[in-house]
Amino acid sequence: MIKSSLIEPDGGTLVDLIVPESQRDSKMAEVESMAKVNLTRIDMEWVHVISEGWASPLRGFMRESEYLQSLHFNCLRMEDGSVVNMSLPIVLAIDDETKGRIGSSLHVALVGPLGDCVAILRSIEIYKHNKEERIARTWGTTAPGLPYVDEVITPSGDWLIGGDLEVLKPIKYSDGLDNYRLSPKQLRKEFESRNADAVFAFQLRNPVHNGHALLMNDIRKRLLEMGYKNPILLLHPLGGFTKADDVPLDVRMEQHSKVLEDGVLDPETTIVAIFPSPMHYAGPTEVQWHAKARINAGANFYIVGRDPAGMAHPTEKRDLYDPDHGKKVLTMAPGLHKLNILPFKVAAYDNRENKMAFFDPTRAKDFLFISGTKMRAYAKNGENPPNGFMCPSGWKVLVEYYQSSQAEEASQ
Amino acid sequence: MIKSSLIEPDGGTLVDLIVPESQRDSKMAEVESMAKVNLTRIDMEWVHVISEGWASPLRGFMRESEYLQSLHFNCLRMEDGSVVNMSLPIVLAIDDETKGRIGSSLHVALVGPLGDCVAILRSIEIYKHNKEERIARTWGTTAPGLPYVDEVITPSGDWLIGGDLEVLKPIKYSDGLDNYRLSPKQLRKEFESRNADAVFAFQLRNPVHNGHALLMNDIRKRLLEMGYKNPILLLHPLGGFTKADDVPLDVRMEQHSKVLEDGVLDPETTIVAIFPSPMHYAGPTEVQWHAKARINAGANFYIVGRDPAGMAHPTEKRDLYDPDHGKKVLTMAPGLHKLNILPFKVAAYDNRENKMAFFDPTRAKDFLFISGTKMRAYAKNGENPPNGFMCPSGWKVLVEYYQSSQAEEASQ
Repeated sequence: MIKSSLIEPDGGTLVDLIVPESQRDSKMAEVESMAKVNLTRIDMEWVHVISEGWASPLRGFMRESEYLQSLHFNCLRMEDGSVVNMSLPIVLAIDDETKGRIGSSLHVALVGPLGDCVAILRSIEIYKHNKEERIARTWGTTAPGLPYVDEVITPSGDWLIGGDLEVLKPIKYSDGLDNYRLSPKQLRKEFESRNADAVFAFQLRNPVHNGHALLMNDIRKRLLEMGYKNPILLLHPLGGFTKADDVPLDVRMEQHSKVLEDGVLDPETTIVAIFPSPMHYAGPTEVQWHAKARINAGANFYIVGRDPAGMAHPTEKRDLYDPDHGKKVLTMAPGLHKLNILPFKVAAYDNRENKMAFFDPTRAKDFLFISGTKMRAYAKNGENPPNGFMCPSGWKVLVEYYQSSQAEEASQ
Repeated sequence: MIKSSLIEPDGGTLVDLIVPESQRDSKMAEVESMAKVNLTRIDMEWVHVISEGWASPLRGFMRESEYLQSLHFNCLRMEDGSVVNMSLPIVLAIDDETKGRIGSSLHVALVGPLGDCVAILRSIEIYKHNKEERIARTWGTTAPGLPYVDEVITPSGDWLIGGDLEVLKPIKYSDGLDNYRLSPKQLRKEFESRNADAVFAFQLRNPVHNGHALLMNDIRKRLLEMGYKNPILLLHPLGGFTKADDVPLDVRMEQHSKVLEDGVLDPETTIVAIFPSPMHYAGPTEVQWHAKARINAGANFYIVGRDPAGMAHPTEKRDLYDPDHGKKVLTMAPGLHKLNILPFKVAAYDNRENKMAFFDPTRAKDFLFISGTKMRAYAKNGENPPNGFMCPSGWKVLVEYYQSSQAEEASQ
C-alpha cells in the first residue's frame, strides 16, 4: 500500500553505479593500466550525483546522443519509446592533452582531486564541446558572469567524454555532513520506514525563514485535507557548487538544524538531507533537473516558487528569467507529468500581525518583503530582522557567519 | 491503399484557417471595429504558413504556453498526451504602442504591408518577448550577424501576441510564382492523383546541380528497390525570407525549371513547389521545422545533408553548427519518429569521370568540392564550372542573374 503511493524512479529502476565491495579489488587492479582523466571538484560532485541514481536512468556522463537530446529537447527518449526528463547536460570535459593520452582506449580511469582513482568510465565516446552552444541553449543567454559558466565551463577542455560509470567506492566529503548525504535509495527506505504516503520536496540553497516554514506547514495541511495520512517533507538543501555570495553549506545546515530544534518545522514529519548536485542558476531549465532528481528519490510532490534557480541577469538590470517561467515550464516538461507541482504562495512579513504571513494583496502596504540581499545586510550589520522573521537560534547562526567572515576579510 | 501509405498530418487533421468565401463579407465587416496590428512582409509569410496547415496542429501565432514548449522542448504536448514537433517559435511581435492600442480587446485584425486587413487573431494573449532568450535558445548563439535576428527579431517589438488565426483570403504574392505555391492540401491531392506510394522531400534554397540530381535519382532507385512502386520527389525550394547573398527565389525557380526541362530530374516523378516559410538559418533547430512541415504536406521520406539550415558562424571562422548535428538531432527529435530520414551522400565533381559522382574516399584526390561560394564566383566571373557540374541551361540562368546584378551594382 505504501510502496505504490511513492513514485517510481525514472526508467523503473534506480541506477546504482557503486561497485560492490567484493569486486573492488579486481576493479582497482584493472584501473592501473587505464588512461587517466583528472576530475575537478565539481566533476566529482557529478560523479556522486550519477553514481547514486539522482539522474536515473542515466548510467554515466552523457555520450553525444544523450547530450544533444538534453540540449535540444530537455529529455531523453528511451528504447521502449518512453521519455524521461533530462534538462541539464551532465557531461565531463577534457582538454586536447587528455584526449591525446586516451588515444583509442575503450575505457578510462577517473582520478579525483586528491589523486586517487575514484571511478571507471567504460565504452567511452569523445565528442566536441561547443561551449557557446551549450551555454546559450542551457541558460538562454551567453552574457559573461554566469557563475557555473565562469567557474566550470569556460576553464574546461574543448572535448566531452561520455561513457558508463562504475564508481569504486561511495563518494564522501569528510566535512562532518556526510550523514546528511542520503542517496535516493536511502531516502526511499527512510520514507518507507516512516510509512509516508506522500513526499513533498523543497529544494533550497538559502536559510529557512518563517515564511518558508509557513508554506511547508500549509502544504502539509493541504495534503492531509486531500486525504493523505502521513505526508513527509523532504527539506533538501543543495550541497554542490554554489555562487560565492550564497550562504555556505555548513552554515545553512546548522541553520536548518536550529529551525527543526526550535520546532518551526516538525522533526517528526521532516527529513533534512543534502542534494549533492552543483547549482547552474539556469532557471526554467534547471528547475526541471531539481524536480526530476527528487522523483528518483521518491518525492511525488514538488514545491516551486517564484523564479526557481534564477538569478539577476549578469549584465542587465533585470531578472535573468521571467519569474513565472520556471513554474510554467515545470508543468509542461516532458517526463515530469507524474510529479504533482505545488506552486509556492508568496509569504512576507506582516507588520500588522508581526509575523510572516501569506501576502494579502488587499492590504499590500502592511507587508514587508525581505529579500536575500536585505537579509544579508541585516546579518552583516548585526541588526535584527523584524521579530518573527526567523527563529532566533537560526538567525544567530547567520549573524555569526557574516560577522566572522567580515572579521576574516578585515584581517586580510 | 494509396492513402494509407501517405503519412498523416500532425494531430490527425490538416489545419486550414482560410475563411470560406461564404463567410468573408461578415468577417470583413467584423474586422472594421477591431484594434489593428500591422504585419511586416515576414509576418505575412508566417500568416501564409500557419493558414495552410504547414505548422498543423498549430492554429495561430503561439500563445505563451506553446512558445515556452517550443523554446525549451522543440515540441508541443497535445491534450491527448501525444507530442508534435514544433522547433521554431512561430510568433508575432508587437510594440508598446500597439499593445496600448489593443488594450483589453479579445480579438484583433491583422493588417498587411499594403494596408488591407488580411486576418483576424482571436482570443489573444499578450506576453513578454525576451529577445535574448529566444535567440539563444533557437540559434545556440547570440553573436551579432544572424540574418533572421538582424532583419526580423531585433527591430521587432517587446511583446508577443498569440491567438487563433482566421485568414480572410488565401495569401498571394502576384510575382508570377503563385502557381508554384501549393498548400499541403493541394500537395496531398497531387500525390494521390499521381498514385504516389512514397513521397521524398528535398528542402533547398540553392540552385540544383548535378550532384543534387544524382542524389535524388539515387534515392528514387533505392525506394524502388525497397518495393515502392511509385516514389514521387517533392523538390521543395524555400520561398520566404532568405539572406541577401542567397540566390533570389525567381532565379532559383527558373533554374529549377531548366533542370526539369533538361531531363536531369524526371518531370513525371517530380513535383516542384514552393515552401512558403521564411528561413532562420538555425541549423539543427530549424531542420526539424523543415521536416515537420513536409510531414504535413504528405512526405514520408526526408532527405537531410551536411549542415542543414546551417551557415558560417557570424563572428568566428567556423561553421555555426557541427555539420553532423542536424542529421543526428533530426533522427532524435520528438514527434518526428514517423518520418523516414534519408541521409545525404556527399557528391562532388569527379575529375576522372568528368561528372558529379558520389565521393569515393579511396581516391579523394580525384574529387573537386564546388561550394556555393565557388559556384557564385564562377557565375560572377562568367567562367564555366567543370563540364557536367550543372545542366547548361540551368547554369545560364545563374550567369545571367549574377551578371545583371553586377551591372546594376556598377550603374549605382
